[in-house]
Amino acid sequence: MSIPPRIITLTTDFGTSDAYVGVMKGVILGINPSVQVVDITHAVPPQDVHEAAFLINSAYHYFPKGTIHLIVVDPGVGSDRQAIVCQTDRAFFVCPDNGILTYLLEEIENSGQHPGNIVKIENRAYYLPEVSQTFHGRDIFAPVAAYLSLGVTLAEIGPFVPNLVRLPIPTLEISDDKLIGEIIKTDSFGNAITNISESLLSRLKIVSGWNISNCEIRVGGIRLKGLNRAYAESAIGKPLAIIGSSGLLEIAVNGGSAETILRLKRGDTVVIQRFN
Amino acid sequence: MSIPPRIITLTTDFGTSDAYVGVMKGVILGINPSVQVVDITHAVPPQDVHEAAFLINSAYHYFPKGTIHLIVVDPGVGSDRQAIVCQTDRAFFVCPDNGILTYLLEEIENSGQHPGNIVKIENRAYYLPEVSQTFHGRDIFAPVAAYLSLGVTLAEIGPFVPNLVRLPIPTLEISDDKLIGEIIKTDSFGNAITNISESLLSRLKIVSGWNISNCEIRVGGIRLKGLNRAYAESAIGKPLAIIGSSGLLEIAVNGGSAETILRLKRGDTVVIQRFN
Amino acid sequence: MSIPPRIITLTTDFGTSDAYVGVMKGVILGINPSVQVVDITHAVPPQDVHEAAFLINSAYHYFPKGTIHLIVVDPGVGSDRQAIVCQTDRAFFVCPDNGILTYLLEEIENSGQHPGNIVKIENRAYYLPEVSQTFHGRDIFAPVAAYLSLGVTLAEIGPFVPNLVRLPIPTLEISDDKLIGEIIKTDSFGNAITNISESLLSRLKIVSGWNISNCEIRVGGIRLKGLNRAYAESAIGKPLAIIGSSGLLEIAVNGGSAETILRLKRGDTVVIQRFN
Repeated sequence: MSIPPRIITLTTDFGTSDAYVGVMKGVILGINPSVQVVDITHAVPPQDVHEAAFLINSAYHYFPKGTIHLIVVDPGVGSDRQAIVCQTDRAFFVCPDNGILTYLLEEIENSGQHPGNIVKIENRAYYLPEVSQTFHGRDIFAPVAAYLSLGVTLAEIGPFVPNLVRLPIPTLEISDDKLIGEIIKTDSFGNAITNISESLLSRLKIVSGWNISNCEIRVGGIRLKGLNRAYAESAIGKPLAIIGSSGLLEIAVNGGSAETILRLKRGDTVVIQRFN
Repeated sequence: MSIPPRIITLTTDFGTSDAYVGVMKGVILGINPSVQVVDITHAVPPQDVHEAAFLINSAYHYFPKGTIHLIVVDPGVGSDRQAIVCQTDRAFFVCPDNGILTYLLEEIENSGQHPGNIVKIENRAYYLPEVSQTFHGRDIFAPVAAYLSLGVTLAEIGPFVPNLVRLPIPTLEISDDKLIGEIIKTDSFGNAITNISESLLSRLKIVSGWNISNCEIRVGGIRLKGLNRAYAESAIGKPLAIIGSSGLLEIAVNGGSAETILRLKRGDTVVIQRFN
Repeated sequence: MSIPPRIITLTTDFGTSDAYVGVMKGVILGINPSVQVVDITHAVPPQDVHEAAFLINSAYHYFPKGTIHLIVVDPGVGSDRQAIVCQTDRAFFVCPDNGILTYLLEEIENSGQHPGNIVKIENRAYYLPEVSQTFHGRDIFAPVAAYLSLGVTLAEIGPFVPNLVRLPIPTLEISDDKLIGEIIKTDSFGNAITNISESLLSRLKIVSGWNISNCEIRVGGIRLKGLNRAYAESAIGKPLAIIGSSGLLEIAVNGGSAETILRLKRGDTVVIQRFN
């Protein structure tokens, strides 16, 4: 019986107009020719660790157990920032220790689980023979991910470490009649994704009798009544609030871009006001 | 003897700056780890079903028989538009029923063949366990395509349906001395592709004695004499007409972009005038 | 024992908004279903042979021995330019004969090695049955690369040829106290890559006692003192000089784009002035 090939995913801010991404794949396939390499995205805005943190957390749940996620958004390359591997119940993450796993670890911890084992990458046997000062994606992260896909264990890669750097991420303000969150990401359709999750909304409903359809949502100077269940429920060009595909409240415009039409951007406040 | 891995292609308007495409690949590989996933494009302009219809028709002929094409340009997601699988002699198409297969079905019918079998996707056994309102590409289309690649049959996916939605597509006007068509697509080189096919031009020549080299082509305020056989036959920066790689008449500029230089766009009229 | 799948890489100026790249992959997989296809980039600026020449030379070293590199930046398609396969110690290159291998061949020759065997592609048995005037990537280069991956030999593809077209590439001016080079490429981070290599700097140091840390680098109206070893050694927003990941001197800005902030572009002069 044949074992399915391991998957290594790539999430970077390298763009796709240079050879950098292709080179990382060459390094990986040189070490493990039968691995499947899958791009998540290479269009993280340059050095935007927060965006990478959001994206990897929205993606990794959908890959098979044991997938290795290589995430290289690395403004500190060549400095003394550490390189790490984090192994959770579900996956491996190979990345710089700069906060890139913040959303993912918060979510795991909020669900009451242990975030898993973490090692600092130190064993140069799993690096390329020559290590540059500017491209650890190629020289360290890619080969380490490839060796993991061959069965190398965390203990062989480096010493265990207890904690990782965390980004300051936007928190929610919850009072009796109001929930204040913010937009944490706009996607390429112009949907503005907030940090207000469907599971929180469900919980508030159960505990305090809130009902989102009985609430007003205020964002970017407009007011929306309750939630829609499909973009097409709103007229073309009209804004709506909807639970998006990541389980988060999104502000969208049917057939258009909420980012452009409502001028929404990361950091904008979103208020859910309760009437009842 | 080993069976070659099945191919699933992806054509979407998701862009590649979010995790959406990677997530669909994760879902597919979770169901069938040995399938080959190939991107056709993710840069269909948002919700531009016509462009997707053109692209998939220009591409699918070049993939091996039995390839599964997943096409998700889906402005009606979450509404009552149907999701379908269409099986032709050559390939499977998994997509919303919104006209995305219009060019492909017209071409099959024009060649006198039967367009194949179509089912409505209804069997939730082939969906992800949770289905969102906004991302059927991940929750329905990707898993159905993956199960097809494992050998699930159309009859297991849902009931057969007789017809699909068709887009209104540009038609040709043909008279004794004139052929009027239009530009249906500009590509990234700025070539302006028309709906006038080489096969039509051949047919007209046979039946009525037309000869394209004896015709004038009028488009965007310019006049071209006959057809060129290579871009390089025209001077650098000069426009020309040529049969492009999809077998359609294209307006191009040698070493430049006809779209920019001649300000051509989808919908512009192209007239072929006969002199003889 | 199973043989690892062969790799075919793709480097083109096709962009990813049309179906052209997907179609080439369909053709390749139709001929060899078990090959691994890896994108290097499809964002070479349209018809920019020099950029493609730089990119393939910076990438191919990192792929396993025997990898087949397909490079299609082909302004002369349909003219009498030749199509070739070049086999070096390390890899196969399938491309038009328009200078695309210039950097690669210079580097091989400068290291005292023989550039390898070259054939002109002529055997139509390895083409698609129909060959267009405008898309040899699909009709000739892709199938020839796929047949090479199945073990077809150079001799079967066409007659051996002695020489290839070379691009005029920027040369260095070296005097007793000055080294004058130029910027040959800016990457998507805005790093400005020069034609001054680390190995040349090492050699000059050995022979003439130069020391880069004792030199001034002048470019785009600014002066930099010596080399940094990491981006983070410079303050945020400040320029620096560093040996980049291709082993070439780069001008960068920590946390920003040297291309934008310093207005650097291909062809700009870079002077290294020696003081001692």
